[in-house]
Amino acid sequence: MQNATMTAEIVSVGTELLLGQIVDTHAPRMAQILADCGIGCSRRTTIGDNWDRLVGALKESLERSDVVITIGGLGPTVDDLTRDAIAVALGDELEVVPEVGEKLRKFFSLRNIPWNETIGRQAQKPTSAKLIENPNGTAPGLFCEKSGKVVIALPGPKGEFDPMADGPVREILSRLQGDQVIHSRVLRICNMGESQVELLIRDLMDGDSPSVAPYAHLGEVHLRVTARAASVDAANTIIDPMEEEIRRRVGSNVFGTDGTSLEQAVVDLLLERGATVSVAESMTGGELAARLSSGPGSSRVFLGGVVTYNSDTKQILVGVRQSSLDEFGPVSEPVAAEMAEGIRSALATTYALSITGNAGPTSDVGDKPVGMVFMACSGPGGTKVEEVRYRGLRQDIRRRATQTALVMLREELLGK
Amino acid sequence: MQNATMTAEIVSVGTELLLGQIVDTHAPRMAQILADCGIGCSRRTTIGDNWDRLVGALKESLERSDVVITIGGLGPTVDDLTRDAIAVALGDELEVVPEVGEKLRKFFSLRNIPWNETIGRQAQKPTSAKLIENPNGTAPGLFCEKSGKVVIALPGPKGEFDPMADGPVREILSRLQGDQVIHSRVLRICNMGESQVELLIRDLMDGDSPSVAPYAHLGEVHLRVTARAASVDAANTIIDPMEEEIRRRVGSNVFGTDGTSLEQAVVDLLLERGATVSVAESMTGGELAARLSSGPGSSRVFLGGVVTYNSDTKQILVGVRQSSLDEFGPVSEPVAAEMAEGIRSALATTYALSITGNAGPTSDVGDKPVGMVFMACSGPGGTKVEEVRYRGLRQDIRRRATQTALVMLREELLGK
Repeated sequence: MQNATMTAEIVSVGTELLLGQIVDTHAPRMAQILADCGIGCSRRTTIGDNWDRLVGALKESLERSDVVITIGGLGPTVDDLTRDAIAVALGDELEVVPEVGEKLRKFFSLRNIPWNETIGRQAQKPTSAKLIENPNGTAPGLFCEKSGKVVIALPGPKGEFDPMADGPVREILSRLQGDQVIHSRVLRICNMGESQVELLIRDLMDGDSPSVAPYAHLGEVHLRVTARAASVDAANTIIDPMEEEIRRRVGSNVFGTDGTSLEQAVVDLLLERGATVSVAESMTGGELAARLSSGPGSSRVFLGGVVTYNSDTKQILVGVRQSSLDEFGPVSEPVAAEMAEGIRSALATTYALSITGNAGPTSDVGDKPVGMVFMACSGPGGTKVEEVRYRGLRQDIRRRATQTALVMLREELLGK
Repeated sequence: MQNATMTAEIVSVGTELLLGQIVDTHAPRMAQILADCGIGCSRRTTIGDNWDRLVGALKESLERSDVVITIGGLGPTVDDLTRDAIAVALGDELEVVPEVGEKLRKFFSLRNIPWNETIGRQAQKPTSAKLIENPNGTAPGLFCEKSGKVVIALPGPKGEFDPMADGPVREILSRLQGDQVIHSRVLRICNMGESQVELLIRDLMDGDSPSVAPYAHLGEVHLRVTARAASVDAANTIIDPMEEEIRRRVGSNVFGTDGTSLEQAVVDLLLERGATVSVAESMTGGELAARLSSGPGSSRVFLGGVVTYNSDTKQILVGVRQSSLDEFGPVSEPVAAEMAEGIRSALATTYALSITGNAGPTSDVGDKPVGMVFMACSGPGGTKVEEVRYRGLRQDIRRRATQTALVMLREELLGK
């Protein structure tokens, strides 16, 4: 089943992208969708709003690959060249689609924007193109099949691109390569480093379908299990036993699959247990609360918390004792414990988390070194405190600290 | 001065990048540095760890452009092909650099990693290459000049790439194009939409040096002013009067330049005034606090706050009255005002901000529609409340709400 995979290229269009004024997140997303549909992505190219270079890049891509997907350059301004460039690269003419013209006229007259020829270009399409509906914008997408090649054109704005790429374009791509899909599942692991994980699963990494590949992220390791099969269901049948084997070896540090964040996994556990949580954080300045409240429905388990960004605030809002601050300093085990216990008792939650530390770059919390952090988890079984030393940038230290606090609560909930 | 600009291409190397498993932020950064150095970036390409495709892409780029910059693929594993591919594309041999070999042996023996031939490849370089020092990793960068073409190779890990790109590579690139730089300054504008800004400055957008281009971001508009000149100083002399003219027209909504975030601008104003701030937020779940505490030194003005993610918490932590909650609901003008006044009085800060609203996707705060948000700013002159209706995704609504709250405080501080 390994041969005859179609190959695809992605061409991102736009001077802002090319010059690095914005980061391209659409092309990575599109590459993932191609992989899901069993089509190998062999190259990605970024081109500015430049006619000759764009036409050149499209022609080259069409020579090398079966499928070319363009992103951007379908808008109404003179800078938007993709539609015309595709027609030239395919040897097509442009023709007007009257229904689209009607829609555009209505759209612009409702908004009192005077009609002009440039806007009218959005109603044109290359002769070999079918339109892909764009419910969130004025420019439809294009799906061209000609001489054994496929060109798909998608608009650049995120609100238009995402639903089109994940909906109709995913469908078109799956049909192109009907006999094969490449399907992946990501197992997300916390509380372990990449090398620790690799030690446990190294022998599993030699396979082809399923293949297993580890990726290190800030405070997490992701294992991508990928299978090639006739359908997603068939691929899942190959992936399932591998997931089971990995979970057998790695244990409960596997906290979720695919898009499940650690905070979502923790919120789900709290929902299951009918438990609630509150937080008291200083160094992380609200990021722990923001993570716990990031998902819809989190308000059923996360009741709130305090950000105690200086010592007085720690006393006022969560009743940390002056004597503890004087004797041990704000970055200390007793203060972390009192913060967690204080907010837990104030809000009467099942659990409470706290974080106090020094995120740097300079030490503005007494004599404690940059990167030193204390985290506490308080619950029905008492209060545990962990001391950690992180290295790295301020924002990374903040992120890692919230990660560790969430892991502490997860372990507590799992009874570890 | 418009002619004879060198052109460059960036080739990012790595299967993880190509397949979209990680987002490429290095290539955008490199494109910005090229622009700073007066070199036009005409194309970016992403290639997987595939020998034929990589050599092919490098040869094509060298045919089209004066400068080719590769990112990634310099590591010690068999997947790391960039060094060898550059040698082939340039018609070079590989030679061993004994000093690098020595360093590597030391590095690996200190870490008890057995030496092997694959590791030893990091000590090789194409014959026409000079080495670029990499203080944070084992693989040095490469700078090759041959037959009027330049190839620069940089490693992929962020901690190695960033300092090398911004240090020695920036220097090399400035020297290549000694007679010209393209220099930009970004003016950041809050409290106005892109079309409002464009109406005020449309006639300024027709120029070439300086050119003025607007970019819309979530809750901000950025105007990029770009000049082409013999030096950065000379470019600044062209940019300065344009900045002045834009500020004259747009007024105090210009809150900063280049990398200055809105939260940093607000923290700076508070520092200037010797004032402090606290927050009480529900819907944004800690994100407002996280923004105010994101910069180093913010602890001098941001004292802390509360995240009142349910109604009881609003009463317990900031003393919102039960009668206000009953009569108006948690998402209401009186509750927003009481939240701000409550935390301001508890922490005795000069100002306090509050946010209460419904971020969706479903309404879990009574009958208030998704996107409805109340924000209050309380200070020595009293309490102001704003009601806003946002559309979009939950995370965007949260972000926009913190943006509006920061704008309210900024206006208060500017006495508007």
